[in-house]
Amino acid sequence: MKKLNVGIIGLGTVGTGVYKVLQSFKDITIKKIAVKNINKKRNIEDFDETLLTDNAYDIVNNPDIDVVIEVAGGENPAFDILKTAIQNKKHIVTANKELLAKRGNELFRIAKDNNVIILYEAAVAGGIPIIMPVKTILCANKITKIAAILNGTTNYILTKMAEKELSYETALKQAQELGYAETDPTGDVEGYDAAYKISILSTISFNKKVDINKIYREGITKITANDIIAAKELGYKIKLIAMGQVLENGKIDVRVHPMMVAKKHLLAKVGNALNSIMVTGYPVGELVFTGAGAGAEPTASSVVGDLLVLASELETTDSPLPQAICNHTEIAEQIDIGDTYNEYYIAINAGNNPGVIGIIGSICGKHNINISTIMQKGINQDNTAEITVITEKSKESDVQNALNELLKSECINKINNLLRVMS
Amino acid sequence: MKKLNVGIIGLGTVGTGVYKVLQSFKDITIKKIAVKNINKKRNIEDFDETLLTDNAYDIVNNPDIDVVIEVAGGENPAFDILKTAIQNKKHIVTANKELLAKRGNELFRIAKDNNVIILYEAAVAGGIPIIMPVKTILCANKITKIAAILNGTTNYILTKMAEKELSYETALKQAQELGYAETDPTGDVEGYDAAYKISILSTISFNKKVDINKIYREGITKITANDIIAAKELGYKIKLIAMGQVLENGKIDVRVHPMMVAKKHLLAKVGNALNSIMVTGYPVGELVFTGAGAGAEPTASSVVGDLLVLASELETTDSPLPQAICNHTEIAEQIDIGDTYNEYYIAINAGNNPGVIGIIGSICGKHNINISTIMQKGINQDNTAEITVITEKSKESDVQNALNELLKSECINKINNLLRVMS
Repeated sequence: MKKLNVGIIGLGTVGTGVYKVLQSFKDITIKKIAVKNINKKRNIEDFDETLLTDNAYDIVNNPDIDVVIEVAGGENPAFDILKTAIQNKKHIVTANKELLAKRGNELFRIAKDNNVIILYEAAVAGGIPIIMPVKTILCANKITKIAAILNGTTNYILTKMAEKELSYETALKQAQELGYAETDPTGDVEGYDAAYKISILSTISFNKKVDINKIYREGITKITANDIIAAKELGYKIKLIAMGQVLENGKIDVRVHPMMVAKKHLLAKVGNALNSIMVTGYPVGELVFTGAGAGAEPTASSVVGDLLVLASELETTDSPLPQAICNHTEIAEQIDIGDTYNEYYIAINAGNNPGVIGIIGSICGKHNINISTIMQKGINQDNTAEITVITEKSKESDVQNALNELLKSECINKINNLLRVMS
Repeated sequence: MKKLNVGIIGLGTVGTGVYKVLQSFKDITIKKIAVKNINKKRNIEDFDETLLTDNAYDIVNNPDIDVVIEVAGGENPAFDILKTAIQNKKHIVTANKELLAKRGNELFRIAKDNNVIILYEAAVAGGIPIIMPVKTILCANKITKIAAILNGTTNYILTKMAEKELSYETALKQAQELGYAETDPTGDVEGYDAAYKISILSTISFNKKVDINKIYREGITKITANDIIAAKELGYKIKLIAMGQVLENGKIDVRVHPMMVAKKHLLAKVGNALNSIMVTGYPVGELVFTGAGAGAEPTASSVVGDLLVLASELETTDSPLPQAICNHTEIAEQIDIGDTYNEYYIAINAGNNPGVIGIIGSICGKHNINISTIMQKGINQDNTAEITVITEKSKESDVQNALNELLKSECINKINNLLRVMS
């Protein structure tokens, strides 16, 4: 292994994990660590505070540093900092999913021009090995589909909602108290985090650059305890699924939204804060990778793993890991959510009217939607009924049109929820 | 990617899969294929029969061939053939688990002396990426435990026994009819295949050479429909588990045997012919890799994946993949099954005697075995009773001593089965 000098940008949860894990690897020397607040008390044993700087450019312009580890996150100022590092011929190891999703193509191009490499195993699914396996040992495959649980916070919330029949708000509050969710949970619960990750993963799996701005994204904030109960009764679990697939016409369907996942599906069995990624390709078939998608230590496994592979390669070549170079010149043609085909769970609140099932059936039929299950359980105290419909595979725009028409019908009060189904 | 000329040894199921998959990669040229019977009709479209030879030395001594792909299997004559290939400076890609388990250390040493590399992703768990991830992206970890389903045939048989409450014999017969089990199923059902694989996987995970001859091995042939029913009632599934772990004293515990796996455990959820590998390490925590562990196409994914990574590396260096070199100078100190600690399921046939539960309890107590569950359900027609015991963690030798003492007791007729438990 080649001896390397590294600089670390960011010393939060992940940075601290990386710092600690690196203490076991004597061929790697930490030269500098850039932080926002140089005076903040750090809870690290035998920490050498003279390593700290509040100027990341002290790292990226330092000629003694071979590799820059960026674990600060966010698009700015990370982009400019890493661009400078690359122009100074430093290899990059980063966990920054937002930066790669938004500006990855630019960075990868500059890296190629400067003959350095950007490694980012930690940017997707924390400790789970997925980027390097897709780039290396799975490279004989034509990957056609990714379906994944890529956000631990929302998986934790949904698991607790199901286990204890909690409301979303109560489960979120508990997750915040236990440190599984942030004070401002938007990035997780609205699906932004999962969207960054599936954009990166789809890009390398399908070898076409996926545009983060064209990914349909829907969070978990509208999931109710009633949906959770209906899922149980119907044999499903609700999961926030990030998916990407190549359609027969070569177009790409990438999106993030909650789904009813059949209990027998391996992704339904992944609970709490775990992440899981199902990859479908030829010739390998279906693979599932499950593990911790966040946290200091699992994420440090990926950051330090990237670094050690790099150190090992640099022992024998100045152009390490050619198979890990990202250079996606082809742009994915992404389809609109309205053009996707799915099975659907539709929760309807209707008047207690003898014709209501017939109306639902005929409106669905008119819009080319075949119903596979319909369930009404008793009558509410206010003389309304909760009706649950599961459809066969239908076009999203047809379903949206049907829902609009249903809402115009006098006996339909409300569409409580619409969820796509993975069977 | 460097253009490579390859020779393939073996054109059975896996070899045919490799041949077909390689047709898509124009930088790889198949120069020769060695087979046993050159006149056998091959079911491959547009197959060029002039590639065939019945002498593997035509490949390993051919100066035009850069890489030898060995998918014939077995220790001999594969060892001598590959040794010659390595001495002729050819890199090796192999799926041969038996060879690597028995003679890997010798081959790896010769490979090191000749500056070539042996890649063998396909030797363990078919299409599931595990060897390369352990060698590369997970290399920051100290791996302490592997628990895995590494044999698809036995997993299929056990799944069908549970689904349909079949006897072992009936399930085996059905598996043979469907091609999931071979006519002579010994290698699979007696655990030899899983033992080869866990020996390889433990060696690279713990960085100590595991001796295949010191692995405790027990197959699935003694599992009865009654065990399957008891497992269901108690909340378990029976799986053939291959495990390896590093104990606190640094000794290594590697073994293959059926286990009662708690239904909530991710390995319990892996049915049919799938394989699954749980890796526990620091800092990554627990990871689970699931997929097809056999079959032409999944195995070809791993063989061709190894080959393409090699081709990519050889573009920039003559010493490819330094991190994938195997060179285990340290020998694992493997413990005997008698010295392992486990929870146990014990199925006892006893006389319908009011004191029998007391006798079981006191003999277990005398041997330091705490019982966590004991269950007797009614009385058999012959006035005997089936008693099921689940123990807390106990030493195997204590349990064996207790069983011997139980058998000496007049009211105990028979120990129907003893299975270790994974909770």
